[in-house]
Amino acid sequence: MLEAVLSRVRPSPLERDRLKSVARKIVSRIEELADARGVEGEPMLVGSAARGTWLSGDHDLDIFIGVSEGSNLSSALEIARRVAPNFEERYAEHAYVHAIFEGFEVDLVPCYLVEDGSKILSAVDRTPFHSRYVSARIRGREDEALLLKQFMKGTGVYGSELKVGGFSGYLAELLVIRRGSFISVLEEAAHWRPGEVIDLEDHSSREHEDPLVVVDPVDPGRNVAAALTLDRMFTFVAASRLFLEEPKLDFFFPAPVSPLSDDELRDQIAKRKSTLILLEFEAPDQVEDVIFPQLRKAEQSIRALLDRNGFSVMRSDVDWHRNLPLGGGERGGSEWRGLLRIFLELSVASLPRVERRIGPPVWEAEHSKKFAASHPYPLSGPYVEDGRLVVETTRKFVDAPELLRSQVANLSVGRHLGPQLRRGYKIYVGQEILEVEDLEFRAFLARYFSAREWV
Amino acid sequence: MLEAVLSRVRPSPLERDRLKSVARKIVSRIEELADARGVEGEPMLVGSAARGTWLSGDHDLDIFIGVSEGSNLSSALEIARRVAPNFEERYAEHAYVHAIFEGFEVDLVPCYLVEDGSKILSAVDRTPFHSRYVSARIRGREDEALLLKQFMKGTGVYGSELKVGGFSGYLAELLVIRRGSFISVLEEAAHWRPGEVIDLEDHSSREHEDPLVVVDPVDPGRNVAAALTLDRMFTFVAASRLFLEEPKLDFFFPAPVSPLSDDELRDQIAKRKSTLILLEFEAPDQVEDVIFPQLRKAEQSIRALLDRNGFSVMRSDVDWHRNLPLGGGERGGSEWRGLLRIFLELSVASLPRVERRIGPPVWEAEHSKKFAASHPYPLSGPYVEDGRLVVETTRKFVDAPELLRSQVANLSVGRHLGPQLRRGYKIYVGQEILEVEDLEFRAFLARYFSAREWV
Repeated sequence: MLEAVLSRVRPSPLERDRLKSVARKIVSRIEELADARGVEGEPMLVGSAARGTWLSGDHDLDIFIGVSEGSNLSSALEIARRVAPNFEERYAEHAYVHAIFEGFEVDLVPCYLVEDGSKILSAVDRTPFHSRYVSARIRGREDEALLLKQFMKGTGVYGSELKVGGFSGYLAELLVIRRGSFISVLEEAAHWRPGEVIDLEDHSSREHEDPLVVVDPVDPGRNVAAALTLDRMFTFVAASRLFLEEPKLDFFFPAPVSPLSDDELRDQIAKRKSTLILLEFEAPDQVEDVIFPQLRKAEQSIRALLDRNGFSVMRSDVDWHRNLPLGGGERGGSEWRGLLRIFLELSVASLPRVERRIGPPVWEAEHSKKFAASHPYPLSGPYVEDGRLVVETTRKFVDAPELLRSQVANLSVGRHLGPQLRRGYKIYVGQEILEVEDLEFRAFLARYFSAREWV
Repeated sequence: MLEAVLSRVRPSPLERDRLKSVARKIVSRIEELADARGVEGEPMLVGSAARGTWLSGDHDLDIFIGVSEGSNLSSALEIARRVAPNFEERYAEHAYVHAIFEGFEVDLVPCYLVEDGSKILSAVDRTPFHSRYVSARIRGREDEALLLKQFMKGTGVYGSELKVGGFSGYLAELLVIRRGSFISVLEEAAHWRPGEVIDLEDHSSREHEDPLVVVDPVDPGRNVAAALTLDRMFTFVAASRLFLEEPKLDFFFPAPVSPLSDDELRDQIAKRKSTLILLEFEAPDQVEDVIFPQLRKAEQSIRALLDRNGFSVMRSDVDWHRNLPLGGGERGGSEWRGLLRIFLELSVASLPRVERRIGPPVWEAEHSKKFAASHPYPLSGPYVEDGRLVVETTRKFVDAPELLRSQVANLSVGRHLGPQLRRGYKIYVGQEILEVEDLEFRAFLARYFSAREWV
């Protein structure tokens, strides 16, 4: 079965040759440009393309342009701008170039040539060390890395970007180097506990609070798994156990999710009899790693608002309907920013008018006095329960959608989302959600309702 | 103002004379009967009547009939049976006689004449020691004791029976002996904390877990306040503070509660918009101290049943509608047993069909496996949340009244209440509660909705 997986994810000789030839062309072009301009600029192919561990069809190339410490990155950036006619500048810690080159998505990243992975000037300076470390050790085990990456992809835990909070490619490769095989990584993961520490070079130089700690072999103070969330980690653990018990191709290639039809959506609403609420507003002009943390923060603020007002949120999730033209690359005008969606499932839509407020213990005389004074006209009470003062007052919001409409614009939801939310939003409740017809959202709903994270 | 209180609660000279003369008659009658039968039997007037601390109108007399250790209580009981023509036998630890004598309710209690309050054979043997201890020390402060008792009565914390869980008369008297005055007791109480210890004789011989510990001056191992609940204790504390701040006659003589009219009840239901449920069933043929703990236990079982099924109970209370003929004394046939009522207020009457079930942490491999296996066809999931397995299943009971109707007869509700509940019950929901028209219940509802435990 693993052979069947490999036959789908292992790049063909043709694909390998094409990638190598494109990479070689770009490297030569960089060398020529540097020579012609008389500036420093050492091209380095890094990432999975460099070490033969890319999944077939991932036509991404990471090519770094190194300059010595003490010199300036701007000359390297200037070179990057001239590699391909079709490019845009992007920003992480520093500017870099994203270009389309013969059908490949190429990141051209200026970096410093430092002497040691722990003495970097910028986060990207570490990458060439990662690439050298892995290349020297993964030889002969590329297939094992491909299996692990595809397994992580299929179970939804692959990718260290904030949206996913899963395993990076480098992390997957380190796990394979450490254990020797895909199956052996799964066998180890089956016994992981929170706070697991893996230190290949046995050189850790500090404590980490993260659920999984994989000490960077090229930087003893860094945790390679810092972006991995507890839940992604243990989704992988659960999937590993299930796969070892009963291996299935579905773990690698889950059936694609069909967007819900109107009837299926109606059926779900009827079956669950919960209160479903969708909040929708326009996305700001920002990249994913900026938007997602703010979107999650907005989700948490709304949950907290509902909780504070007595509405218990059963589950919630967020979605960014991007509407980007296929192939990506060029960013469109604001009409392409897309929509942000926060989807909430509540136990009940409305609560009684009466609300209990639990005060301080009676033996805290001053607090009790203040509490009683702050509720001069309760519906009931004050009375003593479990030694505390209790009053029953009139609840301000008895209806969850009404509460949202009244308060959502005042919430703290992050720097870029706040203004968007104050500019306008829509709220759909229950059956009204049927009005939202785009397939991306209907697929999101299908995933939400199934909520099966592994086979 | 305290004078105004005393003028209402201090027995008049006429009342005192009558009580003394009735007590003297009974004492003589016991002496005569003992002499005539040639048996031992030492009459002792005990309780508040003996020490001049009874509240005007409380026509209760406690007369004990003592026999030496080693002899038998039955001769004393035989005497008790002959004191008054109109009597019934009751049972606490031992049999005693409750009689009506010239309009007084008289308890005639056989006891052993032991040498020391800590070396008793039966709980009642301690009482003569209590009476002697208080009599020797309360002289001149009877009014203070009357004020404290009436204050406790007015604020609902007087009475050590299980139904109330408040302060006994003896406990109130000890507090007055310790502090010297009514006001001074309130000043002390205003600073009480849970676990407060008062030890007049400084002779405590063991630790107690109770919220208030008043070591019995005649028995160093006993807590006089053992029956006092945390909530009654701190209702008294809160009332004490409020009274000291702003003394009002209402603390002693609260306005009587008017039973709710239909309109008032409708108004409360509309104002609160909560789900009110009344469970009603026939009381067994038992005394209050047997029924009340079981009724409270039934209330707790029902709350736990609702909680387990996701229905949050805001508040609940119990009531025993006794239907006893006024004046009490004779117990009627079963038609006089009356009704037990458990009244519940819920946030919501119905819940969504979908129900979240939180499983074990994923790193507990065996538990996780069992959990997943026990939910083979969930509506959603399993997924990982906060490191735990979660599934969403179909809730069995989405309607609280339906849940009660289906499960209430299976609950563990105590030895005497269980059979009654299985014999039959009625459940009233929301507006249906209007069908219950007896004034005792409507007054109970008035108290429930107001829930003000002090002025």
